[in-house]
Amino acid sequence: MTTHITSHPLDAGDPLAAKRAAFDLPAGVIYLDGNSLGALPAHVPARVEEVVRTQWGTSLIRAWNTHGWVEMQRRIGDRIGRLVGAAPGQIVAGDSTSINLFKVLAAALALRPERKVILSDTGNFPTDLYMAQGLRDLLGQGHELRLVAPEEVADAIDESIAVTMITQVDYRTGRRHDMKDLTARAHAAGAIAIWDLAHSAGAFQVELDACQADFAIGCGYKYLNGGPGAPAFVYVAERHHATAVQPLAGWHGHDAPFAFDLDYRPAHGVDQMKVGTPPVLSMAALEAALEVFDDVDMTALRAKSVSLCELFIREVESRCEGLVLASPRNADQRGSQVSFRFPEGYALMQALIARGVIGDFRAPDIVRFGFTPLYVSHADVIAAVDILADILATRAWDRPEYKTRAKVT
Amino acid sequence: MTTHITSHPLDAGDPLAAKRAAFDLPAGVIYLDGNSLGALPAHVPARVEEVVRTQWGTSLIRAWNTHGWVEMQRRIGDRIGRLVGAAPGQIVAGDSTSINLFKVLAAALALRPERKVILSDTGNFPTDLYMAQGLRDLLGQGHELRLVAPEEVADAIDESIAVTMITQVDYRTGRRHDMKDLTARAHAAGAIAIWDLAHSAGAFQVELDACQADFAIGCGYKYLNGGPGAPAFVYVAERHHATAVQPLAGWHGHDAPFAFDLDYRPAHGVDQMKVGTPPVLSMAALEAALEVFDDVDMTALRAKSVSLCELFIREVESRCEGLVLASPRNADQRGSQVSFRFPEGYALMQALIARGVIGDFRAPDIVRFGFTPLYVSHADVIAAVDILADILATRAWDRPEYKTRAKVT
Repeated sequence: MTTHITSHPLDAGDPLAAKRAAFDLPAGVIYLDGNSLGALPAHVPARVEEVVRTQWGTSLIRAWNTHGWVEMQRRIGDRIGRLVGAAPGQIVAGDSTSINLFKVLAAALALRPERKVILSDTGNFPTDLYMAQGLRDLLGQGHELRLVAPEEVADAIDESIAVTMITQVDYRTGRRHDMKDLTARAHAAGAIAIWDLAHSAGAFQVELDACQADFAIGCGYKYLNGGPGAPAFVYVAERHHATAVQPLAGWHGHDAPFAFDLDYRPAHGVDQMKVGTPPVLSMAALEAALEVFDDVDMTALRAKSVSLCELFIREVESRCEGLVLASPRNADQRGSQVSFRFPEGYALMQALIARGVIGDFRAPDIVRFGFTPLYVSHADVIAAVDILADILATRAWDRPEYKTRAKVT
Repeated sequence: MTTHITSHPLDAGDPLAAKRAAFDLPAGVIYLDGNSLGALPAHVPARVEEVVRTQWGTSLIRAWNTHGWVEMQRRIGDRIGRLVGAAPGQIVAGDSTSINLFKVLAAALALRPERKVILSDTGNFPTDLYMAQGLRDLLGQGHELRLVAPEEVADAIDESIAVTMITQVDYRTGRRHDMKDLTARAHAAGAIAIWDLAHSAGAFQVELDACQADFAIGCGYKYLNGGPGAPAFVYVAERHHATAVQPLAGWHGHDAPFAFDLDYRPAHGVDQMKVGTPPVLSMAALEAALEVFDDVDMTALRAKSVSLCELFIREVESRCEGLVLASPRNADQRGSQVSFRFPEGYALMQALIARGVIGDFRAPDIVRFGFTPLYVSHADVIAAVDILADILATRAWDRPEYKTRAKVT
């Protein structure tokens, strides 16, 4: 494993420097893939063990009441709320991002029955598009999923649009949409605005309430560090609580789940977004992971994120021939990742991973680097570029074993 | 805590007696609620810790490939398959029972587009009925959810029925439907048969393939002991793999998830039932828990289950005045639970729990006792009835604090 530098002048005044110790990261690894799977917060294993051994093992079924499992979805939701600018009582955690999108898209379409167009863009994460296609086909009412290029979204919002379904940060390029502007445009056209915060929540401060977003969803296992496949979350703006109803009408979303009525009667407010019993062990890891954010100043988080990304771009462009920036150059238009194009991107990423620099690859030719300000330093950035430059200079990526695709890329 | 007898003649020849040591059960507790939340298998905490610390913490994103997370849904599915009589390749684990029902109900209705009736019974668990109502209302195509009494299901199957949606074991009474007979009747009438195995899987051998069930779903956290809110499972009979498509079209159900196509193209076979990223920590607990069944003879399991239930009924009826059997008297018509009616059932159950006998209550008046043959003994049955008889004789249930309903009952 490469020995790399451990200090950089820009790290000296970093107010988040101490947060690195809140994570267990393996030695010899520079982890630039927190946008795919966040790193392990150091206190999470003990918390999960407590839930497994004591709560499940000893309290058994009683833990639903005695250990507050029954409030978990709301409790975690409110914790996430602080990071995405949502006042309490508008978010529940649970299910997957895909499932949550189905709920809010169906609820949103029902609020605009006279319109048939779902507007999204080609930079959206495919599962969002797939879920919309699945719902469209299921409904069989002539809905259209209209896809435009990301830069054409603003102009494509007109009075034909029922719902805008936009992911704020592009998973490949890190390009960031202007939530406030697009939401205002949607509302001006009479449309409902759904935001996917998969690459936003925990990466920078989001302002759902202030932007007047209608619905939002997001991921628990990226910048929130909730663990592999961590439950997702769903936001319903309070003004829709009386009227928005989603079709996955499970018992936890019933107004009185333990009355065991034969007829569904939706719960009030965001509780109606709950469906089946949530996976408590995974929920517990997410809940514990969120505590890392308790004392984090989100403005400082964003400032460090920008600083890391800018340094990375500068260093790569000055030392790594053949890589072409795929992310916006303007930091205001980026999330917390930087992507470059490279024709043999897959092999390059395998060579990087073999040397301890973990990013990932997105077809057809994008190498993607996520910068989680909680545990990545400027020294890490320099060290990563040192290795990247060496791999390029020696063509170390050009080996057959680096070109065999794994199942998960 | 009550000291109770620890041996009974019927336990002497119990081939499953050693399995008790495979579980961590708290001292002083007789756990008769494994039908609500299965007990903790003793090796699960270490396994979960391994997944948290080593797989997540050290391998990070690489674990999807190196630790086989990507095959987890199918791998767990096949393990469950052995217990429910499904040949490999027909089950995936993931999501909740409610969500899985939505998938198979939508897929089944699409196979019978000319019919509009979903047949179920009033003994079904409410979430199944709610999900069907949600789908019916979403479709807006005039579907009807027809509910009959459990004993009327067989006669209600006629050529108007698109889908029979039946839970094999009644969550309140333990009454068990005849899967082979009802499935044959459904097919004779041209209907599709969906089975909910929430209270069946792991409780006794189920024979999905042999009964020619079309679709099935089931729960991971009851008799499978997968932990609180453990992921559920979904079965699609192989003969439907080419034609059944479910509408929750997430990226994990895509034919090539990591190609990131803009258009959904369903995976072949049961993989199309996958949606979003599954909660790996909860999945890992379920996977580990299933190993307890590896050397279990399911015929012996069922024999012990019947023996425990019969003994419990006999003892309660001879010593506990005021309780009226709510379960079928004939063991062939029961799952692995016994329920009694008692007007102050809620308070009675609280009094039992306070004395270490954990069962649960189901409105309006049912006290419910689940018998998990892997960790419940005949001595436990006698001890539980000793305490129950004492509570009844002393009216110890008649206290205000036992009558205040908790959120989860």
